[in-house]
Amino acid sequence: MQIAIVLYDRFTTLDAVGPYEVLSRLPGATVTFAARQRGPVTADTGMLSLVADAAIDELPSPDIVLVPGGPGQEEQMADGPLHEWLRAADAGTSWTTSVCTGSLVLAAAGLLAGRAATSHWLAVHRLADFGARPVRQRVVTDGKYITAAGVSAGIDMALELSGRIGGRPAAEAIQLMIEYDPRPPYRAGSPDTAPADLVAKTRMASRHTASQPVSAAD
Amino acid sequence: MQIAIVLYDRFTTLDAVGPYEVLSRLPGATVTFAARQRGPVTADTGMLSLVADAAIDELPSPDIVLVPGGPGQEEQMADGPLHEWLRAADAGTSWTTSVCTGSLVLAAAGLLAGRAATSHWLAVHRLADFGARPVRQRVVTDGKYITAAGVSAGIDMALELSGRIGGRPAAEAIQLMIEYDPRPPYRAGSPDTAPADLVAKTRMASRHTASQPVSAAD
Repeated sequence: MQIAIVLYDRFTTLDAVGPYEVLSRLPGATVTFAARQRGPVTADTGMLSLVADAAIDELPSPDIVLVPGGPGQEEQMADGPLHEWLRAADAGTSWTTSVCTGSLVLAAAGLLAGRAATSHWLAVHRLADFGARPVRQRVVTDGKYITAAGVSAGIDMALELSGRIGGRPAAEAIQLMIEYDPRPPYRAGSPDTAPADLVAKTRMASRHTASQPVSAAD
Repeated sequence: MQIAIVLYDRFTTLDAVGPYEVLSRLPGATVTFAARQRGPVTADTGMLSLVADAAIDELPSPDIVLVPGGPGQEEQMADGPLHEWLRAADAGTSWTTSVCTGSLVLAAAGLLAGRAATSHWLAVHRLADFGARPVRQRVVTDGKYITAAGVSAGIDMALELSGRIGGRPAAEAIQLMIEYDPRPPYRAGSPDTAPADLVAKTRMASRHTASQPVSAAD
């Protein structure tokens, strides 16, 4: 089972590495990080590079595609080689997935039209610009398309996907090995629980303009 | 504020990237991934490399040190350049931290003697071999030493550390941006909640031998 995780300049690392840490532990899975060209790809902070071991063109037929988000997503919205690759790969995937604003790239490539999907809470409304139906939920599944909310949501998404692929015991074994028994020390992980002034300030500073809040569905 | 995250062959990526994703967002923080030599370091799966942008010797005085875990930890237990660097760096740190079996490396370097500490649930008992007091808790703080449980626990640890450094509002702002509102689809993230047969089977297959279970303290 070939899993392609797409990298591009200024991606958010945890969007990619959270699901990788889960999916790479699925029996029979091979995860390949792929970018336009092979080689190091620098994350959004400028403080870390991950190595793309393949060019996307070297992976024409992955079983699963995962697109992470990050500030660099804005440069991946125009039609071009990545979108062409995504459309061609998607024709043969079992699952096409995203984390955070990675769903905007899938949507801009035309893959989410008419489908329910999610994204980072600051960006989820933008899915409507591409004919998708924005849903504020941690993980949204519509057919073979699974989209996750912001950054850390990719871990939850990947565990759910692992259960669908390998069955519940396989997913539980992964969860136990990565000791995923989260205990956030604060209750600020969602705009529904974070202090209202922080949510307002964060919305004001966001690059995702014309924000029409989408209510939580879960 | 200089934060050094140590890389070594066959580290577990999420151990390092979870805290990085949090700590890199702290105002004034610079995170540097450092290994014995600069260049790509391959993770435990063999499917991913992260680039160490510095050699540890180029970072003699970090404010914070973080050591991740992973199967490669076993090769970092003998005294040598990494331990020497850890002891020298630790003399000047504000915080010395670990995720998963990274605490065994800190302990083997002599930094946790007499201290409460934690590790991956399968390995936590081994801390006693180095004079530390094993505690089964998600995050354990003893003075300036903060150790986290397995793999994903580094996210919780880094949020707690962010609050200690930058104050609660700074930590909450980070948690909101990475949408850390975890919703594991299964309840298998701890040996206390996972199916008993899975826990037993996992313990049998573990490389951490002579396992004397340490009871949960939280």
